[in-house]
Amino acid sequence: MENLSDKAAQNLAAVREKKPLIHNITNYVVMNYTANALLAMGASPVMAHAVSEVEEMVSIAGALVLNIGTLAEDWIASMIKAGQKASELGTPIILDPVGSGATSLRTNSVTRIIRETSLSVIRGNPSEILSLRHNESKTKGVDAVHSVNEAGATAKKIAEELNTTIAITGPADFITNGERVIHVSNGHPLMARVTGTGCTATVIIAAFSAVDDDPVSAAATGLAFFGLAGEAAGQKASGPGSFMIEMLNALYEITPEALKAGCKIREE
Amino acid sequence: MENLSDKAAQNLAAVREKKPLIHNITNYVVMNYTANALLAMGASPVMAHAVSEVEEMVSIAGALVLNIGTLAEDWIASMIKAGQKASELGTPIILDPVGSGATSLRTNSVTRIIRETSLSVIRGNPSEILSLRHNESKTKGVDAVHSVNEAGATAKKIAEELNTTIAITGPADFITNGERVIHVSNGHPLMARVTGTGCTATVIIAAFSAVDDDPVSAAATGLAFFGLAGEAAGQKASGPGSFMIEMLNALYEITPEALKAGCKIREE
Amino acid sequence: MENLSDKAAQNLAAVREKKPLIHNITNYVVMNYTANALLAMGASPVMAHAVSEVEEMVSIAGALVLNIGTLAEDWIASMIKAGQKASELGTPIILDPVGSGATSLRTNSVTRIIRETSLSVIRGNPSEILSLRHNESKTKGVDAVHSVNEAGATAKKIAEELNTTIAITGPADFITNGERVIHVSNGHPLMARVTGTGCTATVIIAAFSAVDDDPVSAAATGLAFFGLAGEAAGQKASGPGSFMIEMLNALYEITPEALKAGCKIREE
Repeated sequence: MENLSDKAAQNLAAVREKKPLIHNITNYVVMNYTANALLAMGASPVMAHAVSEVEEMVSIAGALVLNIGTLAEDWIASMIKAGQKASELGTPIILDPVGSGATSLRTNSVTRIIRETSLSVIRGNPSEILSLRHNESKTKGVDAVHSVNEAGATAKKIAEELNTTIAITGPADFITNGERVIHVSNGHPLMARVTGTGCTATVIIAAFSAVDDDPVSAAATGLAFFGLAGEAAGQKASGPGSFMIEMLNALYEITPEALKAGCKIREE
Repeated sequence: MENLSDKAAQNLAAVREKKPLIHNITNYVVMNYTANALLAMGASPVMAHAVSEVEEMVSIAGALVLNIGTLAEDWIASMIKAGQKASELGTPIILDPVGSGATSLRTNSVTRIIRETSLSVIRGNPSEILSLRHNESKTKGVDAVHSVNEAGATAKKIAEELNTTIAITGPADFITNGERVIHVSNGHPLMARVTGTGCTATVIIAAFSAVDDDPVSAAATGLAFFGLAGEAAGQKASGPGSFMIEMLNALYEITPEALKAGCKIREE
Repeated sequence: MENLSDKAAQNLAAVREKKPLIHNITNYVVMNYTANALLAMGASPVMAHAVSEVEEMVSIAGALVLNIGTLAEDWIASMIKAGQKASELGTPIILDPVGSGATSLRTNSVTRIIRETSLSVIRGNPSEILSLRHNESKTKGVDAVHSVNEAGATAKKIAEELNTTIAITGPADFITNGERVIHVSNGHPLMARVTGTGCTATVIIAAFSAVDDDPVSAAATGLAFFGLAGEAAGQKASGPGSFMIEMLNALYEITPEALKAGCKIREE
């Protein structure tokens, strides 16, 4: 079993050295914050969604983020196009199925993206992940109504069937490729009181995926880094406004050594 | 005459207990900030604008926010569709007519939304509210050129004619349903130096409307809560950057008891 | 040679007195932050992109910002329409060619805007500015791969050919109209770790252009003001999260006198 604490430190150092370009087709709510998170940690974000430019843009990127948080039909077309180009080039794609299960447009768009592209990692909350299999799973807008534990066994089956890695985030995170199962327990309760926390976890997984060929370790170490930044922010902030600012500071300040020492990753 | 300080405390406690889902079809500028404000105060925000999903989304929501700040034709169609579904279901709709009076597209879209949906509350600055009646009222972009006092009498007539509640915000706020008139004097001058202050007032009214059947008390107590958060933020912040962060902290930290003690609501 | 320190102080005082309306057709990532920057410094921002309202909106504005950061075909049409109206009215237009050189859509859209409107100032990073002339110039997403020095000589030729003012920003800024050459050396390294720094520089140039007829001095003094705010923020902030908040505070707090004393502008 590999040492995932070492791997976490290596991935963070590699992002800061290589500054990978992360191409985001994402939602309006989090664009600013996830761009800032990527910049703060040392990556280089670009947001581009026009159907006529996404293939060119993804061709120079180290990873692609597809996030359906405020989707509309034309954006889905761009996501598919960018995703197919990335699949062709072997560029890792990270899908964030925001609100899947809340409306058919969301659930169906996720199904289509899964079918038409080769995803490295799908990161969602428990309800979103359950909706990938159970049409009856309900999501309350973009918030989970299920626990990480409820979703774990299903996630393992989905990962196996789809030949991808699933990362379920919540108070504790659960990462699986159908075979390996990893638990990450870094984090802070205020993360649930800031919008786009899940979306930010997704872009950090994308940045780590740009420097780590193994989706399982990229997802697990990325979530540990993100959770550790949450812990650092939670020590400085008393409310969600300060917390979201301190998160950006922490993503910038945490060193690979501090990450190695602080990450709480456990493989089953 | 009901005790609105008690009602304010009850509404805040109810939002924190029930965590109502607030469906927003709003402008790009404030999406992140208003989502954060709703999360900070204890509600659950979702932003969704695709014409093919708004009916489903609003069906699971406790209130609907329609905000025309960066409108375009297709978004208006979604607003109407969501608004009609909400009207059918009896779900409260809060309209923010951002920049009404500045361009015909805005003024006409507001007219259409008013005609085709059943609004609980319209919240705007004095110039925006005056534009609902006087085509000649001019708005400077999205900023008011009239005072709250100038707009009060007109607001009373509009509220009566449209059978809705009007909330005019400014240094002091004025709420009326054509019959009752309430003044709220909580607030802080730095609120005028942060973008989306009015839009944030609107989503807070929406969250209170999800737990309070009376649009007049939902609007008045929501604005008192928002203004009190501004006062708390103003004590900690010297500039608009820190102020907007401290606002989110205050929306999270103010207790129902503190709101009861601090709200400045006067009914005529 | 005019005294640009005096001019900087005059421009800042004039913005605070006149509160010019700045009409932005800009990207989703920075809309909130640039609106806040404009409000913090004393101007009045409006974001409006619908093709049916941009002419009306720009007619009441003091300057127009065109920023292609998350462009799509219909937004380009609105930019051209607003730009032509502004050109007709003599309203200054500031273009931010975000990511020009990274995809053909971006490079071609910039070419079209340049050809069909009368621009006062084009502000970009070195790679974006080089792409205006050399089709072979490559941009890494939205980040520069060239230095300000490499781009200076080319900028001078472009400014002369296009009869406009070019502002290249980076660790030091370079402003030219083909004849005059000005260097501004205010700034702070953390500005590179916050998204939308360049876009914010652009809107500040726009606000100064609304009160200063000379594009060269508007650009140079605007960039000195922005860089000085960065210096003030850098003294208070240790990471990018706090830095972006302190920038807004500084844009609000810096007085015309402090700007006069602190600006580092050198004309060749």
